[in-house]
Amino acid sequence: MRAGAVRVEQALARLLPTADGAETDLIAAMRYATLQGGKRTRALLCLAAGALSDAPAAALDDIGAALEMVHACTLVHDDLPAMDDDVLRRGLPTVHVQFGEATAILVGDALQAHAFLTLAQLDAPSDTRIRLVRELAQAISTEGAAGGQALDLALVGKRVAPERIIAMHKMKSGALVRAALRMGALCALPENSAHDALYRALDRFSSGFGLALQVVDDILDVTEDTATLGKTSGKDADAQKPTCVSIMGLQASRQLALDLYRDAEQAIVPLGPRAQQLEQMLQRAATCLR
Amino acid sequence: MRAGAVRVEQALARLLPTADGAETDLIAAMRYATLQGGKRTRALLCLAAGALSDAPAAALDDIGAALEMVHACTLVHDDLPAMDDDVLRRGLPTVHVQFGEATAILVGDALQAHAFLTLAQLDAPSDTRIRLVRELAQAISTEGAAGGQALDLALVGKRVAPERIIAMHKMKSGALVRAALRMGALCALPENSAHDALYRALDRFSSGFGLALQVVDDILDVTEDTATLGKTSGKDADAQKPTCVSIMGLQASRQLALDLYRDAEQAIVPLGPRAQQLEQMLQRAATCLR
Repeated sequence: MRAGAVRVEQALARLLPTADGAETDLIAAMRYATLQGGKRTRALLCLAAGALSDAPAAALDDIGAALEMVHACTLVHDDLPAMDDDVLRRGLPTVHVQFGEATAILVGDALQAHAFLTLAQLDAPSDTRIRLVRELAQAISTEGAAGGQALDLALVGKRVAPERIIAMHKMKSGALVRAALRMGALCALPENSAHDALYRALDRFSSGFGLALQVVDDILDVTEDTATLGKTSGKDADAQKPTCVSIMGLQASRQLALDLYRDAEQAIVPLGPRAQQLEQMLQRAATCLR
Repeated sequence: MRAGAVRVEQALARLLPTADGAETDLIAAMRYATLQGGKRTRALLCLAAGALSDAPAAALDDIGAALEMVHACTLVHDDLPAMDDDVLRRGLPTVHVQFGEATAILVGDALQAHAFLTLAQLDAPSDTRIRLVRELAQAISTEGAAGGQALDLALVGKRVAPERIIAMHKMKSGALVRAALRMGALCALPENSAHDALYRALDRFSSGFGLALQVVDDILDVTEDTATLGKTSGKDADAQKPTCVSIMGLQASRQLALDLYRDAEQAIVPLGPRAQQLEQMLQRAATCLR
């Protein structure tokens, strides 16, 4: 997994434009937003799903990089003062703190454009590339990340049922997790029903794994300090955001996350030993609950 | 041309998500940002270029709609307080004034995603669709609209040579004008060198026409009032933005625009009578200089 993260980091460094002495710091800010580490969860899910279908490694690295560009776009925009107003990310000042708000807005726009450019220029058949574009675009549409973030903001200060929080998380981050897995798998598979069972297994895995990630995020926001998180802790409560923890309590949230991980684990049993990387990602993600 | 604009408006109304009683107004704001008219210049350029290569009309309408989504994305983000801080657009309150800043940021992000989704789902061969995605992504990348807007902001308060303003305009809006023409033309042409002359003619046309649009924009900002423009007039001077007018003067700017239109006109002479729609767009655009 560490090797995969390094490969994706290298792909990002290669695919992003390089600062060329222009008078703006847009490109420097894009690289700042994407090349400061991070867990690379979406890219690693893509690589792991690709391993299930013998997808070519070079294509997977670039698809992983495109996923991380889009993920960084959502983080940079979500951190803006008009949104979650966050000053710290991965232990560093957020992009708008470091480069100004205008640049941060443009960084997100440009990262999204470069993600699609990366997919369009991929060394793969046109048919594969267009399916990748469709998956990624859907994942950040109004039915995915953009709609989820809008819902997240709309719920501030409200007391809502856990189902509403879960629906929001599924859009806000679940959709991109699902896309990451599908994009990894589809890039070596023709578009036909012979692989429906694989996609069903991956979709079920992503439902559990993607939601658990967010539940754990809610938990860590309460239990960890800012230094450990690399972003401001206690932010959800300060912002009056309803979370799994604020609505269900810490104990029930922890149990929910464990149940979700277990469901994700069962989802990939039919895939056999080739799903080993996904299994490892589950194990690793679950350690912070122990 | 009016018929073309109506068809693109209908395509937009059909392709954009419809509000479904959700608790956010993201979708309402996206439709507000795109369905309030406008000249639809980019979409009409796409239709006109498509007429040169017998491209199927239905595909052109959808490509035109995708271009207008991306154009609206740049307008909504450029109008934000951290950018150009504009409160009026097409005679109506800008999106952040009407729906709030957070929603305006998400509107832009979602419009970009839905533009790529539209291209990915187009009724056309995969090969065509992926070339369309590449053209559009390049046009809004750091080499296109995103880079141009960053440069525009970086030049505020500076006294610069006209060449710098021109270089900025070529990125900020010229790149999307160029893409609009290429996207219309390519959608009925295979990717080979047999059509190089057509693309060369269109690229030269777009250089003249696209830049002239911006020079005229600079002129109208000085000569027209807010009611006529539908957006705040005198904005460039207030914001200390160097423009063609502030640097070259009104008379020289007018002459530059006329020269650019003439060059665009010459560029399409070799295309013969099929370039009639492009010719008409030139005539119409030039009327406001008389």
